[in-house]
Parts: sequence; structure tokens; C-alpha cells
Amino acid sequence: MREPILLTPGPLSTSLATKTAMLTDWGSWDDRFNALTASVCRDLLQIVHGEAEHVCVPLQGSGTFAVEAAIGNLLPRTGKLLVLVNGAYGRRMAQIAAVLGREHQVYETADDTPPSAEQVARLLQADPAISHVGVIHCETSTGILNPLADIARVVQQAGRRLIVDTMSSFGALPLDLRSLPLDALIASSNKCLEGVPGMGFVIARRDSLQASRGNSHSLAMDLLAQYEYMQQTGQWRYTPPTHVVAALRAALDQYLAAGGQPARLARYQANAELLIERLSATGLKLFLPPALQAPIILTFHAPDHPGYRFADFYQAVRERGFVLYPGKLTHQETFRIGCIGAIDHAEIEQACAAIAQTITHFGWNR
Amino acid sequence: MREPILLTPGPLSTSLATKTAMLTDWGSWDDRFNALTASVCRDLLQIVHGEAEHVCVPLQGSGTFAVEAAIGNLLPRTGKLLVLVNGAYGRRMAQIAAVLGREHQVYETADDTPPSAEQVARLLQADPAISHVGVIHCETSTGILNPLADIARVVQQAGRRLIVDTMSSFGALPLDLRSLPLDALIASSNKCLEGVPGMGFVIARRDSLQASRGNSHSLAMDLLAQYEYMQQTGQWRYTPPTHVVAALRAALDQYLAAGGQPARLARYQANAELLIERLSATGLKLFLPPALQAPIILTFHAPDHPGYRFADFYQAVRERGFVLYPGKLTHQETFRIGCIGAIDHAEIEQACAAIAQTITHFGWNR
Ligand SMILES: Cc1ncc(COP(=O)(O)O)c(C=O)c1O
Ligand SMILES: Cc1ncc(COP(=O)(O)O)c(C=O)c1O
Repeated sequence: MREPILLTPGPLSTSLATKTAMLTDWGSWDDRFNALTASVCRDLLQIVHGEAEHVCVPLQGSGTFAVEAAIGNLLPRTGKLLVLVNGAYGRRMAQIAAVLGREHQVYETADDTPPSAEQVARLLQADPAISHVGVIHCETSTGILNPLADIARVVQQAGRRLIVDTMSSFGALPLDLRSLPLDALIASSNKCLEGVPGMGFVIARRDSLQASRGNSHSLAMDLLAQYEYMQQTGQWRYTPPTHVVAALRAALDQYLAAGGQPARLARYQANAELLIERLSATGLKLFLPPALQAPIILTFHAPDHPGYRFADFYQAVRERGFVLYPGKLTHQETFRIGCIGAIDHAEIEQACAAIAQTITHFGWNR
Repeated sequence: MREPILLTPGPLSTSLATKTAMLTDWGSWDDRFNALTASVCRDLLQIVHGEAEHVCVPLQGSGTFAVEAAIGNLLPRTGKLLVLVNGAYGRRMAQIAAVLGREHQVYETADDTPPSAEQVARLLQADPAISHVGVIHCETSTGILNPLADIARVVQQAGRRLIVDTMSSFGALPLDLRSLPLDALIASSNKCLEGVPGMGFVIARRDSLQASRGNSHSLAMDLLAQYEYMQQTGQWRYTPPTHVVAALRAALDQYLAAGGQPARLARYQANAELLIERLSATGLKLFLPPALQAPIILTFHAPDHPGYRFADFYQAVRERGFVLYPGKLTHQETFRIGCIGAIDHAEIEQACAAIAQTITHFGWNR
């Protein structure tokens, strides 16, 4: 049987060209691999126009490792982080600050409510100890898009620094560091760039990174040490996930050849629109107001039927060839569908048909 | 041109079957992937006969991440680590303790000198504050084999706990947790198991792991949280390097089919013997006394010629199809050759011929 298509927020379906890039073994000390790493970092920086003041530091591990590294390195040990929370990844950022023993405060809004930039301004004014603000660009828990530009403006006006988790938006949503005043953003190989999982990266202001000496709570996650070692030797500080890096290089080649960020966004937007249209026709309701919904991952209310069980739904759609994603809300029964990955309208049409058949099969639309 | 053969301590040359296992995308939430993870952990534990009292906890990132996780989790915040150092990886373990702010002491011997178990016993007797001892099984800096059984015995007799970095020995050298009293050992996917890089693992005593709550200095490296989450859900706590895990599954299948640890050791031993024989014939001298040399990675003195430069040597052998590894000693000019990876006598013969030709070409044997 053909492998199922992943309608998930990553790891996701990647192209065969990306996967076949992993059929080579690379020496981690070899010039050719160093050139590969350098070209990946250069392209990642270029995607967000960060060449002037930022640098890209790749890190082994999943995206959370890179988020933890950004907090642990860029926040001085005496700093204080205001975390804007409206979902699981915001909560995780606060949890990182807690485990690392860094002072922090949470400004929480409901899952379907973006933080208010005015409220952030008030909180910053009220507490001069807050040195940094942390926010999730697209909160993957629901797919909500947070108002990054407004928040960046008030943080800058207050003379504080902004750390943004762009894990699920990087490469698809526009991000321009020439006009967006960010201290750092964090993302990974396996979401909108459509690489395979195994590495994250932090794009940080060069001066902030250079000022971070002594902050790190961890040896392996020391971003400045990784950066300086790479500058000096071209190599990663500890063994890189060579095949994952090679796959990301191939994924970036395809990304750039297809038209870069605008083209990626257009494809995901078309995927999202088709999903919303088709699934609305089967009676499913989008959780978020359309204006707040990013075209990355969609949250739908579960079918309003007493017989509904996510496990059954998942399994039946899985048998029809598609992997869905569970909801991440505690108060309401929902499920999620990713718009991202090497998928286009053909796969979306097939997936919607499979979902509609499943709902009819179980009688959840009666 | 064919890709070069890696004579390195990892990432190394892997089989095509291992690499082609990466041609599938896996949903990190899917049952089939959970089963893959569980079977990998089960096999890793079985290789060292740890089923009775130990558990296997995989971790995203390179091997160093797993070493840091072991120290940060298994050592109580008030613990003290005695680190046995005779190379770069021992020094790194001490550096981890320093960055994590854990009390530690170093017992250092020369690069070619194993630590003495008697001296360890004396140090433990002299300082009751030492709760744990850390040692490198095969110190990859030179390839020296440290006397693990003797050290384990004195550590047990002193009622302390032993954490062993078996990164470059796991799967090849015999390790039997039924008779070897270890608190934890650490290794990774991409050395003697011949997988690709991107994950490490810690095999720890279940009771020690369970007693580690609250120790972790890091959210992402919290081993108990990773273990408990995996027990509850079958899933990794944060996005796993799915393709790397699948490659390790394939590598383990080949490992077991070929005869497991004894067969792996026999192949590496034959590789090492052939390398030593052929390279000695070209006038190269092994750095370590043969009795201390593990058949994992060999350190040779550089050709004793004023014109010798490692960069030229590396490049010329590289052009002949083989990737060597630099030495890691500060006081003496050396280079290293790995015996590990999907290589056998054919590749070793070719490599030795390439090295001999290179030395003759440069006139370094005159
Ligand atoms: C916004 C956001 N932040 C952080 C993460 C964590 O990344 P990982 O699972 O790779 O650790 C994710 C993963 O889905 C995410 O969507
Ligand atoms: C004995 C030993 N410990 C630790 C490491 C570090 O592993 P990594 O480079 O994967 O972080 C290595 C790598 O060569 C090693 O040989």
C-alpha cells in the first residue's frame, strides 16, 4: 500500500527529491559538507531578509531545543521574559523559562483570541524588569495568527527585545527583518520549508548573540559557542544530523525554484481555502474566525454527534490514506488538518473526499 | 564520481538499506511510528542485556546532547561527579558538569594512559561527597579502551554510581548490564550501530531515572519526562527525527541479521588488524600500545617528515576516495582512521593503497 499522506503540522509529507537527498553519507569534517551547511544558513537568513543585522545558528534536535536555546542564551540570567500565551506552544515557552529558572510573567488570552498589542504595551510600562517578550507567530495549537507586527512595534517602543517562535510560519508567511524589529526568531527544518525533522535554527541579532556569553544554561545548546565554532571551522560544534541538513538543502532548492515565500504561501492558502470549502460542505465548522486563521493548520470542531470519537475518525481516514492530527484544546472537541507539506489540490481533494466518506460511513452527519 | 568512503568515527559510511529506509515519511503521532520507536528501544536495551533493571530513553540531537542529559538528570543538583579524563570526550563531560553548575572533580591521565581503578578507589574513599563517577569507555580521541569492568567494580564497592559514555563502543564491544554495575550508559545512532546521526539514547537504571525528578536543568533534555511521556503515549515528547529513527531500525535489522555484537566486533577487529598491518608496512606507527587500542578508531603518528601537512594528506587521500579524520592530540602530530561503518576488507585494502600512494607521492617516506 502507498504510504499515507500526512495532513499534519510536521513531520509532514516531503517530496521524493528531498528524501533522496538523504541517500548520501557526508563526513562532518569535510569541506563539501561545510559548504552545504553554510549555504543552508545563508538561504534561511535570506528568506527573512536578515543579512544586515542577524545571523543564522542551526542547532541539532527538534524545534523545542532551538526555542529553549534562544531563551537560555538571549535572555540574560537576570532578565525577565513576558510570554504571550494563547496555546500550547506559548505555554511551553513559559515552561522553558520556569525550568531554566528565569524570571517570567505570562499574559494569557483564550485559544481563539490574539494578544492585544496595547495590553502588551501596558504590561511593559508597568514592569521595567521585563527585558524580553516571547510570542508565537502562528500558534499551531489552533492555527491562529498572532499580530506580530503590532507587538514588535510596541516592544520596540518600550525599548525591550522580542523573541518569536516562527516554527510553523517560517518560509510561508512573510517575515521581513528589515522592517520587523526582532531580536530573534526560531524555526525548524520540517514545517513550511518541507524538510525532514532533526534540526532547528535560531536567527538572532548578531549583537545580541555576541552579548550572550555566559548566559547559556547548557553546553550543547550554547548558541554563541555553536556560532563561533562554525565561523572558525565551517563545522557544527558537535556531530550534525548530516542527512537532515542535506534534505533541507534539497528542500530549499525546490522552495527557491518554485518561487520562494510568496509561492509557498499561495499554495498553502489554496490548500486551506479548498479544505475549508469542502469540509464546510460536509457540515464541519472551522474553530477560528476566518480572519484569525493562518493557512498553515486548520482547527475544526468535531462532528456534533454523540457517537463521534477521534480515534475512530483518525483510524478510518487513515485507512483511506490520510493522517489527520488531534486537536490540542482541552475544553472543546476538535481536530486539526495541516495545509502544509508537499501536497497540493489533488491531495486535498482526495483527503476531503475521504473525510466526507468517513463522516457519512459513521452517520455523524445525521 | 562515487561518494567517498568515510573512515571516520561517525557520521560514517552506512549501507544503502539503511539510507533507503529514509525514503518514507512518518507521522510522529501514528501507531506505526510508535511501534518503530518501541522496537528500537527494546533492541538497544537487549544489546546490552539491560532488560531487568534498565530502560532506554532516546533523545533528539547529537550524542553530546544525550551525555549532557544523563549528567543533568541522573546527578542530583547536590551530587558530585568524578570525571576520569584521558581525552577530549572525558574533558567534555567535565565541561558539561561545569556549565550545569554541578560539583565535579577531574582525575586526568595522559592520552595513552588508562585511569587506574585503584586510584579511583582512593579518590572515592578520600571524598565521600562524590556521588557519581563518569568515564568514557572507548575514548575516541585516540581510540584507547578504558578498563570499564575494573572501574565499575571499585565504584560499586564504594557505593557510588557510574555513568559511562559508550558512544563509540556501543554495539561493537561487549557490554553486559547483568554483570556490569552501571547506573547509565550513553550512545548514539551513528557509530557502531551504523545508523545516521540525529539521535542519542541513555540506558539508565529504572530506579535512578525515577529518582531523577526535579534534577533536569533543561526542559528538552528532561529524560524522565521523555520516558514517562513515551510510556503513556508511545510517542516522543517533542518531534522525533523520524527518518533517523527509521534508518536506525533498518541498521538494527542488519546488525541482528549479521550476528549482532560478536559479529560486529569481529568485522571491526579484522578491519583494524588489516589497517595496522598495511599501514605499518608503509612505515606509519600506531600511537597506542596495541593492548590499549580498541578496534574502533586508530590513531597513527603522522609521517615523520618535515614536509608533512595533514591538510595535504587529507585532500590527496580524499581525491583517492577516502575521508580520513584529523588527530585530536595537542602535543603530537597524529591522524585517525575509523574501523567502523559499512566497510569491510575490500574498502580497507583500497584505503590502505590510497594512503600508501599518497605518502609515496609526497615523498614523506623518504
Ligand atoms: C509553534 C511551534 N513551536 C514549537 C514547536 C515545537 O517543535 P518540535 O516539536 O519540533 O520540538 C512546534 C511544533 O509543532 C510549533 O508548531
Ligand atoms: C566517546 C564520545 N563521546 C561523545 C561524542 C560526542 O558525540 P556527538 O559528536 O554526536 O555529539 C563522541 C563523538 O565522536 C564520542 O566519540
